[in-house]
Amino acid sequence: MQFSSDNWAGAHPAIAENLARRATGYETAYGDGTLDKTVARTFSDIFEREVAVFYVATGSAANALALTSVSKPGGLVFAHREAHILEDECGALEHLSGGTRIFPVDGANGKMSGEALRAAIDRFAGEFVHAGRPAAVSLTQATEAGTVHSLDELAALASTAKEFGLPVHMDGARFANALVSLGCTPAEMTWKSGVDLLSFGGTKNGCWCAEAIILFDTARAKDMAFIRKRATQLFSKSRFISAQFEAYFADNLWLRTAKHANAMAARLAGVFRESGSARLAWEPQANEVFAIMKRQTMERMFAAGAAFYDWRPPYGFTGSIDDDEVMCRLVTSFATTEKDVDALAALIN
Amino acid sequence: MQFSSDNWAGAHPAIAENLARRATGYETAYGDGTLDKTVARTFSDIFEREVAVFYVATGSAANALALTSVSKPGGLVFAHREAHILEDECGALEHLSGGTRIFPVDGANGKMSGEALRAAIDRFAGEFVHAGRPAAVSLTQATEAGTVHSLDELAALASTAKEFGLPVHMDGARFANALVSLGCTPAEMTWKSGVDLLSFGGTKNGCWCAEAIILFDTARAKDMAFIRKRATQLFSKSRFISAQFEAYFADNLWLRTAKHANAMAARLAGVFRESGSARLAWEPQANEVFAIMKRQTMERMFAAGAAFYDWRPPYGFTGSIDDDEVMCRLVTSFATTEKDVDALAALIN
Amino acid sequence: MQFSSDNWAGAHPAIAENLARRATGYETAYGDGTLDKTVARTFSDIFEREVAVFYVATGSAANALALTSVSKPGGLVFAHREAHILEDECGALEHLSGGTRIFPVDGANGKMSGEALRAAIDRFAGEFVHAGRPAAVSLTQATEAGTVHSLDELAALASTAKEFGLPVHMDGARFANALVSLGCTPAEMTWKSGVDLLSFGGTKNGCWCAEAIILFDTARAKDMAFIRKRATQLFSKSRFISAQFEAYFADNLWLRTAKHANAMAARLAGVFRESGSARLAWEPQANEVFAIMKRQTMERMFAAGAAFYDWRPPYGFTGSIDDDEVMCRLVTSFATTEKDVDALAALIN
Amino acid sequence: MQFSSDNWAGAHPAIAENLARRATGYETAYGDGTLDKTVARTFSDIFEREVAVFYVATGSAANALALTSVSKPGGLVFAHREAHILEDECGALEHLSGGTRIFPVDGANGKMSGEALRAAIDRFAGEFVHAGRPAAVSLTQATEAGTVHSLDELAALASTAKEFGLPVHMDGARFANALVSLGCTPAEMTWKSGVDLLSFGGTKNGCWCAEAIILFDTARAKDMAFIRKRATQLFSKSRFISAQFEAYFADNLWLRTAKHANAMAARLAGVFRESGSARLAWEPQANEVFAIMKRQTMERMFAAGAAFYDWRPPYGFTGSIDDDEVMCRLVTSFATTEKDVDALAALIN
Repeated sequence: MQFSSDNWAGAHPAIAENLARRATGYETAYGDGTLDKTVARTFSDIFEREVAVFYVATGSAANALALTSVSKPGGLVFAHREAHILEDECGALEHLSGGTRIFPVDGANGKMSGEALRAAIDRFAGEFVHAGRPAAVSLTQATEAGTVHSLDELAALASTAKEFGLPVHMDGARFANALVSLGCTPAEMTWKSGVDLLSFGGTKNGCWCAEAIILFDTARAKDMAFIRKRATQLFSKSRFISAQFEAYFADNLWLRTAKHANAMAARLAGVFRESGSARLAWEPQANEVFAIMKRQTMERMFAAGAAFYDWRPPYGFTGSIDDDEVMCRLVTSFATTEKDVDALAALIN
Repeated sequence: MQFSSDNWAGAHPAIAENLARRATGYETAYGDGTLDKTVARTFSDIFEREVAVFYVATGSAANALALTSVSKPGGLVFAHREAHILEDECGALEHLSGGTRIFPVDGANGKMSGEALRAAIDRFAGEFVHAGRPAAVSLTQATEAGTVHSLDELAALASTAKEFGLPVHMDGARFANALVSLGCTPAEMTWKSGVDLLSFGGTKNGCWCAEAIILFDTARAKDMAFIRKRATQLFSKSRFISAQFEAYFADNLWLRTAKHANAMAARLAGVFRESGSARLAWEPQANEVFAIMKRQTMERMFAAGAAFYDWRPPYGFTGSIDDDEVMCRLVTSFATTEKDVDALAALIN
Repeated sequence: MQFSSDNWAGAHPAIAENLARRATGYETAYGDGTLDKTVARTFSDIFEREVAVFYVATGSAANALALTSVSKPGGLVFAHREAHILEDECGALEHLSGGTRIFPVDGANGKMSGEALRAAIDRFAGEFVHAGRPAAVSLTQATEAGTVHSLDELAALASTAKEFGLPVHMDGARFANALVSLGCTPAEMTWKSGVDLLSFGGTKNGCWCAEAIILFDTARAKDMAFIRKRATQLFSKSRFISAQFEAYFADNLWLRTAKHANAMAARLAGVFRESGSARLAWEPQANEVFAIMKRQTMERMFAAGAAFYDWRPPYGFTGSIDDDEVMCRLVTSFATTEKDVDALAALIN
Repeated sequence: MQFSSDNWAGAHPAIAENLARRATGYETAYGDGTLDKTVARTFSDIFEREVAVFYVATGSAANALALTSVSKPGGLVFAHREAHILEDECGALEHLSGGTRIFPVDGANGKMSGEALRAAIDRFAGEFVHAGRPAAVSLTQATEAGTVHSLDELAALASTAKEFGLPVHMDGARFANALVSLGCTPAEMTWKSGVDLLSFGGTKNGCWCAEAIILFDTARAKDMAFIRKRATQLFSKSRFISAQFEAYFADNLWLRTAKHANAMAARLAGVFRESGSARLAWEPQANEVFAIMKRQTMERMFAAGAAFYDWRPPYGFTGSIDDDEVMCRLVTSFATTEKDVDALAALIN
């Protein structure tokens, strides 16, 4: 009954095996090996256009360096108030970019409201030197709330950004979960919707450590090579990332693991939807489920071996939580089993 | 005949296998897992004292963050003129530490001369605000020249640093190669010699990606946790590093792979020592061999499939190189075979 | 009828004259001159304890460098949502400190509410590495809303900071205006109330360019010397600042100019209080007056030669503003005359 | 007998008077005042083309921010080994630009040798990610050695920079001294010789505090506004700089003060040239004189009230200095009198 986070799981066996298979023989270091090049081509195939791929160590690195590459002195990045870059990265963007600030934008369920985004950018659009100037819009897909922007929502937010001449970054730490939730193509969910830079995450969906910055404008690649290197994010044996992605993409493993995780979340949501002692905070669309229950229910479940986090209700949350209730977050992954979900269900009721 | 670099090899089979073995089950993320804690204790055992261990993605990260943790505004780090932090890290320390500069210190064979180090620190010891002030001494073991500081040499350099109140950092990207070359203990080569912070590298010696900052003063650990996180170097599934180190240390694998690499380098050195068409630039002590040969000899070897780099002779080099000669660097690793060396030998002669 | 800002005025004649008087003769550069030392002693006298004084070019520099000196990796500074460091300094603190973030704290009339401050710090007090950790509290006296913290309010906010072990910074761009408003001593308004670092502003109150960082803990001075120098804020002919402060403090000029500015603001407030076509947004306590009027009234006044800014109502503002109304800010200074105020009054009514 | 530095003098009376004259009345803050605009036009007139002018607090600020504006991730600036940015600015460029490094280039008398500059840039021209990449060339006019690049020398160095696509920055802390030494126009000594960005210093030549970044490519101005503001270098009452420059340029005051300082240096050089107990280290061309004398001569002069610095002989110095001799630096300014020089002459002999 382990629902703490999708990064508590290990690696999918197919990925672990491929790492072992690729362990022998020599390859050019620092990203120029044969396997590196093959996998880079796979990325271009998947996105249906030439892309530039830069592996980095963490999703935070992908976010901070992608946004650094489009920031500028006095720059502001607009992101949802609950975005990972704002809440969970310890000031990495501010630190690595030389002072870029993140301006919080409100909106329900982890998505910036279009109106709030426009108002936020507009406030700085005069490029008044004291206030700083707009540099980029960053959105998260799937969101931190376990919801997924529809293609229309993505296009609308990106269109607002473009109106002000701003590049759009997507934090795709749970890219695959969103993708299979929408049932669209990677191209549709990114550059066809106006996304310019992508943090493509594999770690939460079955890899050990596989995060990549995807640049849809390959002209940005030259600068990115130096941005990554000076941030000490250039792996020497980069093949160990390529080998993970090779297995990740083979036979659509990544889509299968994401579908599985989402299905487990849906099953879990069903449990809460029908439960008398807990309720869904909102409808999940990917692999995170937020529920509200009495604190003593939560504690009883912890005591029985269930693992998940209680969670600060997000700023935009309009539901009601009684004083003796808590909001909880439960996350599923490739490793979650029906048995896990059912055991939890038995506990709740 | 692959001698380009020790990071062109893959991973040792025992390490790859352990990664696969550790892929299943759940572990607390971000370094707090059971395996993480077990391996942390192993580090303390190996160093014969309580140490704080921080995994990072690259050796450059270990260097930059370790030195950031002891730097200060206007700080200067003293390092050999050919040090990796100065020559090969794209300004990472300057970038990540907010402007710390590296002052180059001369010395033969990759080692700072004690006299030059003292003069360099002394020049800034007045803490004249325009010039900046001494912050740390960084030395490399094994050096970039494939040589190894003796324990006496380490202690002498560290003693000079301590005289001026400066912490000592060791770049141990090839720590194991130096260790088995000296035949001493890890404790002797580090804190017993005056080293305060260590970049402990496993990648070049058979891991995929296994680099750690070792703090011998555990009081520094609190700050380091934030320094690492804001630099986006905190792995979520840190177990994938722990699993590598677990196998690395098991049955002294790390010492065996290092001994093997050094032995292959010694065998290679023998080839050059006895060759009529090439000669050693200086005596190697670890797993890098520097040789001088005619450019046409090098090119003939390249054409025959040998792989290594020609190399800019270091500042301190006092030997002679004719106009039609080049200096070359050949690196061995756990994966180098006697057959590789002998094939190269056959080519030279 | 110039009420745009107190930095639109020039310099008080006594200050301009003293600059001319001090223009001849030689003085040691970089802050070590005789006059520099004399003025430094004056600061210690004024604050009734030994202080360390560092001149810088702007109030933003004083704020950013003072807070840099007490920040740390992953650090958060708590400040009012409308604080100058958050709204008007273009990310200077984030930039110069290597990524320190500012966490906005709510509260009416430019003052953090004690409860909101406590809740904000408490949220980060666990020093959870992803979220960052508390580093300092910064408050503004007089506030950006033209109000003044009472000594009790200062002590209460500082006490909350101290409870969490945090240093307290005061942005005193309008220090003198607050001081004469309270009628207390500089010591009472700073270290006796728990303030550790002060941005002491003279520019808005009659100097050309006279801003200083005051450290009440002189042990911080050594680091600050390097922090200032590497930020390129160390003046060579620092005597030109000392000469301004010399005149500023002579015969209590600074208190007299501040009292005059405050009196002009009070007179202006009276105009709005009694006016039928405009009203005070809240009661002013220093030299800034915020009023609400019909947009057409404002435009009529602009057309007649009055100069001031319309102003975005602050987050905490609970009054009502009709759709055809605007909030306006009017600032007085040493140079404001009764005639100016009366001319404006005639215009309004 | 005050020859310590040109920044030990105060301000020229004409400048002090103009500051007093401009102290009254209101002006738009932050550089948009009438006087600011007038003086900006004067700069364009002086340079015979439209330039963008940005006042900053110090020469170090001008250097660091000008170079920041043309740097890039992994960037290297090439400058003379004795350049102020390398020796005397406490790592400001590294700090403020996010890690730009300065690569020292050798050359006699404070001037980079053309050959050494070409070799230095060429070493990094491959844009190898580990080593960093060339970003700019910075030269100092007049040099730190008190010499002056001829127009041909400037053009040759700039031409080498341009060959590699690099912008050229000139540190003109002693711009006027060089200008009158060459007897050319400001345009000839800058953009007509290939200079793209200029640190224009007025402080050492008679101002209190008057330093400006001059951009010959006005398209860079937009970014510079934010670079300056986030570095806390935007003066509110910028009129106090404009008033200084207004007087500085009026009736060619700046050229007269520079000519005077240079003439005093020439007179001083004559003293050393003819002296039996001291000798010129090299021929001065601006307002700094370097001489070699016995230590006891120097100490005798100090005891008699002469003030100047003993000086570390520069790297490129090929003259001989006996063990009992020291190199000394003596600087003249607008305030130096013939009487001062003659009194020193009397002391030496």
